[in-house]
This record gives sequence, structure tokens and C-alpha cells, in this order.
Amino acid sequence: MALPNELSATELVAQTTSGALKVVDVARAVIARIAERDATVQAFAWFDPDALLRQAEALDAAPTKGPLHGVPLGIKDVFNTRDMPTGHNSPRYAGSQPGVDAAAVDVLRAAGALLVGKTVTTEFAATLRGGKTRNPHDPTRTPGGSSSGSAASVADFQTTIALGTQTGGSTIRPASFNGVYAIKPTWNSISREGFKMGTISADTVGLYARSAEDLMLLADVFDLDALEAPAPTGLAGARIGVCRTPMWDKAMPETRQAMAEAAAALGAAGAAVSELDLPASFAGFADAQLKIGRRETRSTFLNEYRTTPELHEEFKARVEHRDAPPPSEIREAYKLVDRCRALFDDIAAAYDVILTPSAVGEAPLGQDKTGDASFNSMWTLLHVPVVNVPGRRGPSGMPVGLSLVGRRYEDRKVIAFAGRAGAVFATP
Amino acid sequence: MALPNELSATELVAQTTSGALKVVDVARAVIARIAERDATVQAFAWFDPDALLRQAEALDAAPTKGPLHGVPLGIKDVFNTRDMPTGHNSPRYAGSQPGVDAAAVDVLRAAGALLVGKTVTTEFAATLRGGKTRNPHDPTRTPGGSSSGSAASVADFQTTIALGTQTGGSTIRPASFNGVYAIKPTWNSISREGFKMGTISADTVGLYARSAEDLMLLADVFDLDALEAPAPTGLAGARIGVCRTPMWDKAMPETRQAMAEAAAALGAAGAAVSELDLPASFAGFADAQLKIGRRETRSTFLNEYRTTPELHEEFKARVEHRDAPPPSEIREAYKLVDRCRALFDDIAAAYDVILTPSAVGEAPLGQDKTGDASFNSMWTLLHVPVVNVPGRRGPSGMPVGLSLVGRRYEDRKVIAFAGRAGAVFATP
Repeated sequence: MALPNELSATELVAQTTSGALKVVDVARAVIARIAERDATVQAFAWFDPDALLRQAEALDAAPTKGPLHGVPLGIKDVFNTRDMPTGHNSPRYAGSQPGVDAAAVDVLRAAGALLVGKTVTTEFAATLRGGKTRNPHDPTRTPGGSSSGSAASVADFQTTIALGTQTGGSTIRPASFNGVYAIKPTWNSISREGFKMGTISADTVGLYARSAEDLMLLADVFDLDALEAPAPTGLAGARIGVCRTPMWDKAMPETRQAMAEAAAALGAAGAAVSELDLPASFAGFADAQLKIGRRETRSTFLNEYRTTPELHEEFKARVEHRDAPPPSEIREAYKLVDRCRALFDDIAAAYDVILTPSAVGEAPLGQDKTGDASFNSMWTLLHVPVVNVPGRRGPSGMPVGLSLVGRRYEDRKVIAFAGRAGAVFATP
Repeated sequence: MALPNELSATELVAQTTSGALKVVDVARAVIARIAERDATVQAFAWFDPDALLRQAEALDAAPTKGPLHGVPLGIKDVFNTRDMPTGHNSPRYAGSQPGVDAAAVDVLRAAGALLVGKTVTTEFAATLRGGKTRNPHDPTRTPGGSSSGSAASVADFQTTIALGTQTGGSTIRPASFNGVYAIKPTWNSISREGFKMGTISADTVGLYARSAEDLMLLADVFDLDALEAPAPTGLAGARIGVCRTPMWDKAMPETRQAMAEAAAALGAAGAAVSELDLPASFAGFADAQLKIGRRETRSTFLNEYRTTPELHEEFKARVEHRDAPPPSEIREAYKLVDRCRALFDDIAAAYDVILTPSAVGEAPLGQDKTGDASFNSMWTLLHVPVVNVPGRRGPSGMPVGLSLVGRRYEDRKVIAFAGRAGAVFATP
């Protein structure tokens, strides 16, 4: 029989709600799993087993049960939490107590989630320098970042769901590297209040789970938009666009192979699979995104710069606007991105969902760097929903995820297709 | 001789930096002024004279002096503060201690500002229901909102500078009603981390002062963008566009008169004043903005809805998406706004600065409602800098402000013109 920490959120809630499973037993299973695996995976920045047991006892004693009653939740350590420190993997914030929950934490706590602890992030969720966390599939490899601990903890059954963030590829890339499902929802369809700002035009809350069904449960909890048309009942007849993006040259053999196999599998399941070539404007998107990121992070790190002499050089460079483009170029960058958002809305209307890489390849060796976000960043700034679908594997046996993308507010449609696609992507 | 609380920030810093004035004497002057006027104006949600004196003593003892050394600062009570409660004028947050400063507070504190207290806001800076604050020019009238206490405290010499926010007209309208200068800067050119989210696409930090010179000092502190061309040396030859906006029908006689007199005064000073008619797309802007606001605040108030049964009906309506437009309409709303931003950039390039109303008229009687934001909201969502310039007065002798507007990142140019325009707008 599966241990409580091995259940999906959907299965677990059924048991905690019926009374078949006590939350305190869920907490004990989580504590045991973390005790067993933490020396290897190191997913947590803060974890207190006694506090977790007390929280579980309070949930067991609560007069009502929410839709996530007792579901173990990992919280990326850039989200403010009222009863745990919030460290941002920054010396300035070590032990910092923000006292008020971030909006997403507030919603999940109100839904009855069991808040396991704070998961490791790269500093301010804004660098490629790895934290201490290791990939649970192979501890000599990175779990990706910046949501390193959240992705690894879900993959390793230390949590069941987890909160991440994404400004470039910080939710989807780790999902790919760890072989779990994740959604980077439509921009601002989940409030980003109370997590560290980076590039405000792109920053988005991300969610991890081990199934599309669990992502749909979270879509309910966060009240993501209802389907605009009846839900697809299968892949037969689905219109699927294959988008290699202007970054295709960066795709490693395993990503090229996974894309080809996935497209073939979808076609074999009856989907109408066709190539989607983005218009010429998109060739300038990455450069425009770089400029926007430089200008926006110049503002968002000013306070850290003014107060923290030991701030890393890359943040200092932003605030001092070394190599910053002049305002005229930044205005043009926003215009290009705005045009591309409108173009993409029109293009994507011809498809049910779009297939695109989640990462350049398998998780790289080492913990120094968290990998390459080239295949994620554009979708983030386009504000569209992206779901990572696991199933394929690379030459080292590591997971290689693929992304499904929809139009803004089509989050539920993308999740629904992710569940169906996941079944056909699964490596035998 | 002027009392310390009557000085401009620029004058005050010269004295505190030279040692001619101790910060503790600034604090005493502020405490005396608040004691004299608080029963009438009621600008503060939280004020502790003993804590203020201790803070002033610490500033006097500090080894270095920042660019705002000892400048009395009012902080709208939606900004998190590490040593004062942050109440949002909401029962849920009464006495709440967020423990970490909002980014703008962090920057101002690091610059040596004297944090006087938390100023009254409408609930979550998101309603038109007035708070307790009264207009210092006439306590039977509203000071405007939502940054009610910040605008009133600066106008009434209880603070010298103050932090506000603007999503519709929450900084500029109160500046107009209270007869002070204020800037609503380019979107995200000051980090909005740590103040309550409403409509994230529009939410902007606002700054109050009693002179354009003080706004320029704050532009330095917040590192707003450098001028792209040499600063104007006067109004002679300046290209000024007069923009009545699609809202002109709402302008009351005093606003129409102030606009006409201001345009004439600028012309008399040698400026090339011409009409600026916005293209037809802008006719749909207000409707698109309403739709975007409904969708974004649906996300940002979800956590309050789930946790706070006594939440006001208007917030509940947002979260329950009563009357919400479908996603297809919201996508079209974003497209229209994005197009208008690009159009405005191109149009505004032909002008040095644009003159437009700050409010429909004088501050209305009563404290129930904070007035009409019709003339502010479009500029906020266009992300362009707006400075309120006082000087004109209406039939009741109340201030009637006018706005100067520039392109994104032209904040310093707009402030520079505001100083020159203010001199010619001043009612004899």
C-alpha cells in the first residue's frame, strides 16, 4: 500500500476528508521521508518536524476541511510566510520573519494544505548559481532552478505539491529536470503578492504536482478561468501545433528526439499535428526581453543595493545600469513584446494546444549552475499558460519534459491536454 | 523663520547635513504640528511620538548622513513597514506586523528619511469609500483618495514628503485636491514590492512633496532615468500638447477654466502650445481598462475573500466574477491597451510635455467618497509619468491641479517642466 507521502493530492484529500487518514499520519510520513532523503536531496531551506506535527494536529482538530486538507506543500523560500522565516537564499534575509503570508500561501493555507517547509531557491530567484539542492534522480546533477527545492521535493515524495515562481524558466525547467508536472499559469491569474519581485512584467507563481489531475485540483483552489468551450474528451482530432521557437539551435539531441517522439505519439493518438512557425517579429523577442529584464530589475533590486554591501556583482551591475539600454530602446522593446503577445493570441487560436521544449536537454551535471532557460523565457513574458509534461527520458536516463502552451486564460485547457499527453509520452 | 516642518525637503536636508538643524528638532516640530492639527485633519492611521523621537535620536547619532537626512516622511498604510503596523484600513490587518519594509520604504529609510507614521488609505487602496482624513484646506471636504493621509499630511506641513500609490487616480487626484506636487512615475520605475496589489498592470508607487525641486530630489533617491536630452532651460520654445482626453465631458467649470488659463500662461511664457487629439483607439480605452481591472483584481483579492468573511461586497463581487467579461474580451482589452501604449509613445514624441486635467474639479464636500479618477486612470495604465502641478484654484477657493505627462522614462523631464509650469500657474 502506498505511503501517505506517495499519494497524489487528489487521492490524499479523499482519504483525509473521509477520515480514513489523519493529517498527523501524513505529517509523520513526510517527516520520515525527509529524514531518509534530506542528506542526499537537500530540498529544504527551513524545516521543523515539531512545528509540522503541531500544524497537522490543528488540521485534524479543525471543524471544517478544505479542498487540500492535509496535502503536504513545499513553499519556495521567496514567498513570505507568517510562521516560518523567509530567507531568499540571501545573507540579508537569513531568519527574516515577514509576519504575513504571501497571497498564494494564504490561499493554500486557507484550503487546508499542510505547510511542510521552505524550499531552496537560488538567491532572490534571480540567478543561475545553484543552491544546495540535488536532483533526486541523480544527486550528481542539478535539479534546475530557481525553484530547485520545490521541484525536487515533489519529485522525491517529500511534498505532494509545491509553490515555485517563474520569471525566465524557474518553474518549468526544474519540472523537466525532475520529471514532474508543473504549471506556469497565465500572468497574474494567481496573485504574486508577497514573493520577491524580479522582472514584474514576467514574474509568475508556479505550481508543482505529480499529475495533471493534481494541477487541476490546484486550478480549482486558485479559481483559474473556466473553459471557454467544452473540455476535450481525448486527443483524437485535437489541433496541436509544434513550435520549435527561435531557440531551436540550442536543443540537444534528447530534446529533439523527445519532441519528435511526442509529436508522433500525439499523431498516433489521432491528433492533427502541424508545424507552427512564429512570425519574423519573434526573432527580436529574446533581445527585447533582455532589455526589459535589465530595466525592471534595476528598480526591483535598488533597495537591496542600497542596504546590502555584500550583494552579488550581477545585482549590482543591474542597479548601476552597466550595459543598460537607453529608454528609447526599452520603449521599443516593450512595443515589440506587446505586438508579439497580440500576434500569438491570433496564431494560437488555430490550435487547441502547442507543443514546445521545456529545456535544452537533461539536467546537467553538477550543482554550480541550474541550466538554460532559453525554451521557457519567451512564454513567460508572453503571459501564456505553460504546463510541463514528463514522460520522456534522455541518454542518461534522466527526465526530459515537454511543454504544452495555450492562450492567456486557457490554463485549464492546457492542464486537461497535459494529462492526456502525459499518458502517451510515458516512456515504456 | 520657518519651522522645520515648513521647510522643503531640499532646504531641510541642507540644514540637517550642515549640522544647523538636529533631526530631533525636526521630529519635535512634526510632533507639535500633528498635536495641533490631528483632530481636524486626521491624516494618520498610526503615529507614535516617542518612537519618532527615538528614531530621530538614532539619525542624529548616525555616522553618515543620507540624501534625505531627517526629512519627515508619511507612509501610506498599504506599504509594509518593519517597525510599524500595516493596516490597509482593513479589519483583517489591524495591528498586522509585516516585519520587512516595502522596497520603497527600504530605499527611503536607507536615504535617512524620518519615518513619521502610517497615513490613512481607503481599504486596500482600492475603494472610493473615504477614510477619516479631511482636507486641510477645508475639513468639510474630502482630501481625495486612496492616498488620503499622505496628500493631506504633506499639504498640512505634518510631513514633508510622502509615499502614495496609484492604480486609477490615487496619487494625482489627492495632490490636486490638496494643492501639492506629486508624481506618478513610469510604471515599475520604482519597485512596487511590499505594497498591497490591486491591478498589477497599473499599480504604481506615488510620491508627494510641496515643490518640483523636492520631487527631483526623490527622483535622485529612486534613481529615476536620466534625461535623454539636455534639460529644458525654460518654457520659451517648449512644445506643449493640450490633451482634453475622451473624458472631457466630465470636466467641471473650474477644471475647464484652469486648463484654459494654464495653456494661456504657458503660451505667454513662450511655449508652443497646441491641441493633442488622441486617435480613435483611445475611445475604447476606459472600457478595456475596466475589464483588465476586473480580471486582475479577481486574482489579487482571492486570498482576502477566502479568509475574511466580512470583506466588503465590492471585493466579493470581483472574486466571484459577477459581471466579469469572458477571457476573449479580456485578451482583446489587453491588445487595445498595448496598441494605445505604442501609439502614445509615437504621438508624445512630438511634444516636450503634455498638459491634461488632474481631476474633474475641486475636492467634493463630505468624507463619504474620495472623488472621480476619470482624468487619471488612462495615464496610469499607459505607464507614463504624470506630475500634478498646483497653483490654480476653483470657485470655493480650493486647489485645482493640472497634470503634466511625458513618455515612459521621461520622469525627470516632466518634473523639470512641472517646476517651471508651477511658477506660471500660481494664482496671483
